[in-house]
Amino acid sequence: MNISIDREILLENLNTIARGLPVRSPMPILTGIKMYATDTDLYMTSSNSDISVEVVINDQSLVIQQPGQTVVPGKVFIDIIRKINSKKINLYLSDDKVLVIKADRGEYKLQIMDPVDYPKIDFVLHENPLVIDADVLKGVIRETVFATATSEKKPILTGVNLKNVGGKLIATATDSFRLSQKVVAIDPEYKDFNITVPNKSFDELLKAIDQYGERVTLYFGTNKLLVSFKNISFQTRLLDGNYPDTSRLIPAEFPIVLKFNKDELVEAVERVSLLSPRDKATDREITYSIIKLSIKKDRIIEISTTNAAVGDAKEELIPTSIDSANPITIGFSSRYLIEALRSFISTEVSLNLSGAIRPFIIRGDRDANLTQLILPVNME
Amino acid sequence: MNISIDREILLENLNTIARGLPVRSPMPILTGIKMYATDTDLYMTSSNSDISVEVVINDQSLVIQQPGQTVVPGKVFIDIIRKINSKKINLYLSDDKVLVIKADRGEYKLQIMDPVDYPKIDFVLHENPLVIDADVLKGVIRETVFATATSEKKPILTGVNLKNVGGKLIATATDSFRLSQKVVAIDPEYKDFNITVPNKSFDELLKAIDQYGERVTLYFGTNKLLVSFKNISFQTRLLDGNYPDTSRLIPAEFPIVLKFNKDELVEAVERVSLLSPRDKATDREITYSIIKLSIKKDRIIEISTTNAAVGDAKEELIPTSIDSANPITIGFSSRYLIEALRSFISTEVSLNLSGAIRPFIIRGDRDANLTQLILPVNME
Repeated sequence: MNISIDREILLENLNTIARGLPVRSPMPILTGIKMYATDTDLYMTSSNSDISVEVVINDQSLVIQQPGQTVVPGKVFIDIIRKINSKKINLYLSDDKVLVIKADRGEYKLQIMDPVDYPKIDFVLHENPLVIDADVLKGVIRETVFATATSEKKPILTGVNLKNVGGKLIATATDSFRLSQKVVAIDPEYKDFNITVPNKSFDELLKAIDQYGERVTLYFGTNKLLVSFKNISFQTRLLDGNYPDTSRLIPAEFPIVLKFNKDELVEAVERVSLLSPRDKATDREITYSIIKLSIKKDRIIEISTTNAAVGDAKEELIPTSIDSANPITIGFSSRYLIEALRSFISTEVSLNLSGAIRPFIIRGDRDANLTQLILPVNME
Repeated sequence: MNISIDREILLENLNTIARGLPVRSPMPILTGIKMYATDTDLYMTSSNSDISVEVVINDQSLVIQQPGQTVVPGKVFIDIIRKINSKKINLYLSDDKVLVIKADRGEYKLQIMDPVDYPKIDFVLHENPLVIDADVLKGVIRETVFATATSEKKPILTGVNLKNVGGKLIATATDSFRLSQKVVAIDPEYKDFNITVPNKSFDELLKAIDQYGERVTLYFGTNKLLVSFKNISFQTRLLDGNYPDTSRLIPAEFPIVLKFNKDELVEAVERVSLLSPRDKATDREITYSIIKLSIKKDRIIEISTTNAAVGDAKEELIPTSIDSANPITIGFSSRYLIEALRSFISTEVSLNLSGAIRPFIIRGDRDANLTQLILPVNME
């Protein structure tokens, strides 16, 4: 193998490849990047227990003097290409089993691994993929993935569920104490699917898609999802098991509707939560940073907390609109509310309540088909 | 106590007070900030085992309705003032032993501590202080403090030594493997001093002085140094013991002088050091990240490293000038060289060598009276 290429192109592709590179692995060869130069193209592959990534480079700066393949130590190779500031980079295998990196007056020799030891990665290409806008997919992920469970107690809840219901893609995430749901229209003829994607895979996919705004192609395999865009194939394993039915969690009626300027609400909640009791040792995540929201007289909303160890905090807010039959006090995790509010692009959001211990939901006037639900804690 | 003040003024002063606040303390009251409002001024004090800080505020926005004193929990108080975005803040003690913070529609009640339990801090004011430019003091600290020891094996080496030698302030830091020395002119009549300031105190002093560019006043006490500027008194304890005589460490003659563009040298060393062997477990800090520098034929300088586990790296550099009798290869810590080079503002720096296992020094054409010395390792 002997190739030369613009550093900028190589680095951009390596930053994508980094998404699939494990920090360590029971299979040491997976800490390497597989490089395979044909007569015309350069393939690079990385893989860990969740994700496999492949890029195909045929940039016009790429010159392949000699095809070939190798596996290079991933982290140090990427570090070197990042630090180099020459325009061109020359990579070749030398007799003594090293990859030589030449750039201006610098020369780096990396000990390589045998490409025959690199496992074969099957990418689940097939004839009937689903094509959607990259921005739609990015939105779906950003608006739901934060609500997945971090604990492995119910592994299925560490993923985002994607389901096709008659031409609507329903994305759902829940950790049992809150729920995020986004619905987007897709090709009404597309076949049924019901898959759950690990949250970490979606985090890495977001970084890989980055600024790209054109279309992406999704291939649904039996236990894999392949997302294809630009010159990139990004494949993730799926979580085993049936995703719980969450449709009955969302109340049908909301007698109390409060509308707020979103930024004002976020800032007030953030300040009050500085004093909310921290209880990280607890098993129930929801008891973390509990605050209270009350409807007071004169249509003022009070956000407050009491902390026996440090002190009390309260903020008064004037909602932009209020539709309420009765006064109510509701307690919940401030972190859940802040994370939910941050998922909206709307300037104005509504809190829709149906009772002090019934789930409440948040919607935004400019965020169609996005529902954030939070389960209150009993303040009695 | 009942005062009101512009949030911005209070926060700016709290950011200074934060420099002396311990994260935790065997004396819980020291995790608090002492506040003392006279008829006209607000004093705030923080103190930990190394540093005590006092600010006196008499800003025109300060209105003292009622003098008084208290000790407020430091971290949470600063966090709240940071998060508030109102212009004015009102602070008052209420009957039930809490400090009330009022800002717009927010109200925070913090449990306070008894100010009589707060230790009395003696600031070593006296009639004969030394006045110097803040920028000079900042330069002295920045150019030396990084070379202090991090290990507590020889505690005196964890500080920067400041000595008056006939109207010259000599600042010296060494961890036994490298040495930084800066000399600046002071009042030739000023009394002798020879003190060693803990590196952490100087780190915090740099943050406290920040952008301030006027004059600072130094008061030398027997075991304390007080630095006074703006409305701030910053006092640090001094390290016990005699600082070692380092004057004989610096060679008198340098038969080899290599001049480089500083940025080119830093970048080449950073790249090569990506492959230099890491040996963090070792006792001798200097074995960390060892690289070699060699004078090759055609006046080319080669920076290189060999790493049995990963591979080799080399970079060729063309010095801006070279004055050398013989070829030489010298090995040293790349981290030490990079940290030393970063202390210079000069575009061009000179490496002055006197032998493969003799200390070499670095100077910069625009950095008068700054000497960085590095002890090589034996590469045989």
